[in-house]
Amino acid sequence: MSGLLEPGAPRAAGLTDDRAVLKAMLDVEAAWVRVQRRLRLVTDEVVTVVGEACVADDHDVEAIGRQAEGGGNPVIPMLASLRERVGDAAAAVHRGLTSQDVVDTAVMLLVARAGAVLTERLQAAADAAARLAAEHRDTVQVARTLGQPALPTTFGLKAAGWLGALDDAVAELVTIRHTLPVQCGGAAGTLAAVEALVPGRSAEAVGLLADELGLADPGRPWHTDRGPITRVGDCLVRAADAMGKVATDVVTLSRAEIAELREPADDGRGGSSTLPQKRNPVLSVLVRSVAIEAPHLGATLHSAAGLAVDERP
Amino acid sequence: MSGLLEPGAPRAAGLTDDRAVLKAMLDVEAAWVRVQRRLRLVTDEVVTVVGEACVADDHDVEAIGRQAEGGGNPVIPMLASLRERVGDAAAAVHRGLTSQDVVDTAVMLLVARAGAVLTERLQAAADAAARLAAEHRDTVQVARTLGQPALPTTFGLKAAGWLGALDDAVAELVTIRHTLPVQCGGAAGTLAAVEALVPGRSAEAVGLLADELGLADPGRPWHTDRGPITRVGDCLVRAADAMGKVATDVVTLSRAEIAELREPADDGRGGSSTLPQKRNPVLSVLVRSVAIEAPHLGATLHSAAGLAVDERP
Amino acid sequence: MSGLLEPGAPRAAGLTDDRAVLKAMLDVEAAWVRVQRRLRLVTDEVVTVVGEACVADDHDVEAIGRQAEGGGNPVIPMLASLRERVGDAAAAVHRGLTSQDVVDTAVMLLVARAGAVLTERLQAAADAAARLAAEHRDTVQVARTLGQPALPTTFGLKAAGWLGALDDAVAELVTIRHTLPVQCGGAAGTLAAVEALVPGRSAEAVGLLADELGLADPGRPWHTDRGPITRVGDCLVRAADAMGKVATDVVTLSRAEIAELREPADDGRGGSSTLPQKRNPVLSVLVRSVAIEAPHLGATLHSAAGLAVDERP
Amino acid sequence: MSGLLEPGAPRAAGLTDDRAVLKAMLDVEAAWVRVQRRLRLVTDEVVTVVGEACVADDHDVEAIGRQAEGGGNPVIPMLASLRERVGDAAAAVHRGLTSQDVVDTAVMLLVARAGAVLTERLQAAADAAARLAAEHRDTVQVARTLGQPALPTTFGLKAAGWLGALDDAVAELVTIRHTLPVQCGGAAGTLAAVEALVPGRSAEAVGLLADELGLADPGRPWHTDRGPITRVGDCLVRAADAMGKVATDVVTLSRAEIAELREPADDGRGGSSTLPQKRNPVLSVLVRSVAIEAPHLGATLHSAAGLAVDERP
Repeated sequence: MSGLLEPGAPRAAGLTDDRAVLKAMLDVEAAWVRVQRRLRLVTDEVVTVVGEACVADDHDVEAIGRQAEGGGNPVIPMLASLRERVGDAAAAVHRGLTSQDVVDTAVMLLVARAGAVLTERLQAAADAAARLAAEHRDTVQVARTLGQPALPTTFGLKAAGWLGALDDAVAELVTIRHTLPVQCGGAAGTLAAVEALVPGRSAEAVGLLADELGLADPGRPWHTDRGPITRVGDCLVRAADAMGKVATDVVTLSRAEIAELREPADDGRGGSSTLPQKRNPVLSVLVRSVAIEAPHLGATLHSAAGLAVDERP
Repeated sequence: MSGLLEPGAPRAAGLTDDRAVLKAMLDVEAAWVRVQRRLRLVTDEVVTVVGEACVADDHDVEAIGRQAEGGGNPVIPMLASLRERVGDAAAAVHRGLTSQDVVDTAVMLLVARAGAVLTERLQAAADAAARLAAEHRDTVQVARTLGQPALPTTFGLKAAGWLGALDDAVAELVTIRHTLPVQCGGAAGTLAAVEALVPGRSAEAVGLLADELGLADPGRPWHTDRGPITRVGDCLVRAADAMGKVATDVVTLSRAEIAELREPADDGRGGSSTLPQKRNPVLSVLVRSVAIEAPHLGATLHSAAGLAVDERP
Repeated sequence: MSGLLEPGAPRAAGLTDDRAVLKAMLDVEAAWVRVQRRLRLVTDEVVTVVGEACVADDHDVEAIGRQAEGGGNPVIPMLASLRERVGDAAAAVHRGLTSQDVVDTAVMLLVARAGAVLTERLQAAADAAARLAAEHRDTVQVARTLGQPALPTTFGLKAAGWLGALDDAVAELVTIRHTLPVQCGGAAGTLAAVEALVPGRSAEAVGLLADELGLADPGRPWHTDRGPITRVGDCLVRAADAMGKVATDVVTLSRAEIAELREPADDGRGGSSTLPQKRNPVLSVLVRSVAIEAPHLGATLHSAAGLAVDERP
Repeated sequence: MSGLLEPGAPRAAGLTDDRAVLKAMLDVEAAWVRVQRRLRLVTDEVVTVVGEACVADDHDVEAIGRQAEGGGNPVIPMLASLRERVGDAAAAVHRGLTSQDVVDTAVMLLVARAGAVLTERLQAAADAAARLAAEHRDTVQVARTLGQPALPTTFGLKAAGWLGALDDAVAELVTIRHTLPVQCGGAAGTLAAVEALVPGRSAEAVGLLADELGLADPGRPWHTDRGPITRVGDCLVRAADAMGKVATDVVTLSRAEIAELREPADDGRGGSSTLPQKRNPVLSVLVRSVAIEAPHLGATLHSAAGLAVDERP
């Protein structure tokens, strides 16, 4: 998450950086101990001790990051750091789970958390488009196709086009929020270890974990079915597409020769290192660069999904 | 659609080749004349004359393909070929539409038609997975993670994992089928020319077109909102992911050293040009190659979507 | 290779369609028999008989395409079609080779053949840019950054920028032409069968095949090292990038409000299906669509390359 | 650069993180003042004062990252931070340059620096492959194609295949190192401001900058010709392809049923969070995940390249 070569990226830092990942993983471990309490496998004291140890700031996130290489995932070093803080409660921590349960569920928590902020921001963009569509219902403008003037239209209709795509993006994000599943299958995706802990109630345990975390119960482990991940990715790419269309229109229509639109002036925005007179549509240029990147990032998730093998890739 | 370098591709030829595209475009033009009939703008005779001329085999698809370059789309040469066949009815053909209306709606028809076949085939694959899941409910097998033996599982559970992803793919295809929209906005996406033909009833005209073609009425032109296209693409990529996972498992588990699975023998399948003793899991290898390609094809649609500009890219 | 949905694509048909692929594969088989002649393994008559049978138009390309599915490649049905035409010479056909030898070498022939045409066309584009750079050395124009006017420049300098990238593309294509390798390793990439035919001379045989086909001798089989393929792909994508930049400039600067550039008028080019007054920069729009697609196609080759396994993927 | 979700990524942190980017940008600014000294535009004292201020650790990299959003690049806030430290020498800092000159040149420095480490590591991998090829020249092994046993080969030949691709990757990296260009064109890519400073000697100034930084003189500004960037990207993707092939072979051949290869045991490597007996080929799995991601990252650079417009995208 470079702030220097991806201007604007620092806005997302707290939502997706390593500390946020660690917090989400610890939240999963803490929730799993609470599930064990509800299944009467542990005492209240274990819940308290583990809960108090599951504070991201108390763990060395950089060390965990470095140590993630050994086992190929961050759960192993995180568990070491966690277990040494909880004394006898260590035996209950992560019991019956596997690393992928924690990573996948943590990723879904991150999606839920970052998605809430993103949905709010997209809704604000949709609201702004709605206002423009209403205000400029009768603002006549030339429609352009293949870059050339075609026929009259209104700016309101253009903004309504933006609105339609943004509304769709918001609706998809809201819908997908309710389907984000916990992952809980244990070492081989069979729930065998959970079943051993609570014979006949392993499915119930998964449901309780979903309940504790505000996620959905998928009804089955999805260790090698990356659909829950790719659906989120595709949805985010479509949101980027919708914003990219707006940004491309703004960059185009704010060209000096066209001058139909202008990015709002703001202190320190749109400046140049050499030409003080310039007012660059910087936000739109940055949004557009995201729209160029996003399809490739979304496709990466699919490339991994289609090649999954065995009970874990 | 190369049959030589993409073995298996000929199966899709009739669904997506140039003749299928031309047929879909002609179907749109014929439907639009029927819409005009329902709006009392043309006579039954015009419907008959145009309908009879809208037969793909009667037009020179290769010539239309070559001539598509001039205007950047195939509608212009197709219209020339169509109008010269219909005498005075030519005036009604394409009246109020623009090229993109025809291409986009035709693409949606192609998706509906090819999607029906694809859905059927995926459903058959899901049914097969369901049978395997039931039959092998108790067939113990080693679960593998990161390529290494982990714990016992059953082959039934593995097949159930395949089934889950295939079921999701079928469900998404079925859902999306009902949302495939007609495109109808005219030259600038304003419906101005349709409105001029039937004042106050242009929205109704769009609905009639959707009705004639068995597609959905999107409620607005979507010339620069490529969401309807990317949603289809993403859905198809997820279907490819689901099949790719099955194929990767089959290729892996049919390795001679593992030999837990085997592709069904079939006359002329799995042979080698030099080693007659070999039985290659050819279908799985081909499916896997589709799973490698599909994410990139889906991403291409997004790359175009996020850069759309003006009233037509 | 759709002519309808990819206007302009028919220009490439003869260079890359199934018939061209079949011709290249037959050329490889014929060359391999000539190699055997030079190694004194067959008679002149065998060379003549096989050579006369290796005419693409005499084979049923569609049937071969359909039958390619069984073995996962088109060589097996092509060999059946070829061998039944050559009587006793059949034993010499393909002797010591494997399907991938023929497909990979044929692909390199196709690259050489299509690349020659492409290089010529890119050179013409570079020459045109050079003329513009010279003629407009002093044609003052505003330079624009982030869509906004910055400082004066000249159109000559802009054209020189186009020229630089086009020159690089031509140079890379010319360089890569000389490295296009034959593939020749036999069933397992060990050259064992060739070595059995001509003990101690299998490396010489590969060199002779390269000589017969005007390709390079790679010094080793590259069945699972897809570098020769991805290098070609990357080179073509860079050519598309260079053309995409030109096309994007033309589309932008031919906007009516800017009107600094204009695509040359040409009979039947730039028209619209509904607005007869329009002059669309159609060629640039089509070139730009290629620039949007090309990176994804190039990446597909890499996705396959990085996942190659064993002695053949 | 997440250490938690991209295990192994922390190894690259010091080479490509924000601090490394800032250091490279400051190195460019310091070098440009030294160029001005060689052109007799500033005194030795200015060189000293600016040089002493160009120490990355003395600047607030996080603040610069946050402020990068306003102008769309990090150079503007970096210059503010730098200029306030150098008193009257501020006038000479960045004089004649534009933000993109600094960012592009800094990126080339980063490529040179990270590339040196990468080349060394790839060379070590190639050397290891060479050793294996020599040691196992006669170690007979079954060759596999499409996952099935084909014919005998040797492990030495397999290792020689790895070696070939790794050697190519090293050679390409070494070659490209010598072509990494400085960017120096000023606000509009015309070198106008440099020409104003040193009439008739602006080309010489660019050459001096290249000399100071150990980069190449490109002979022309390349603000919108992203070839120098995409060539680096393609080269890195090919290196990832080569490593991906090795890793895929290792993961496959270390399957318990095959057991021909094994990742070296190492303290803390290959462990599992739940199954202590497992020895996972973790390094190979991580390398493989890079091979899945890399093509998409490389394609992103091309997507931006082909859509460049005007004198700056």
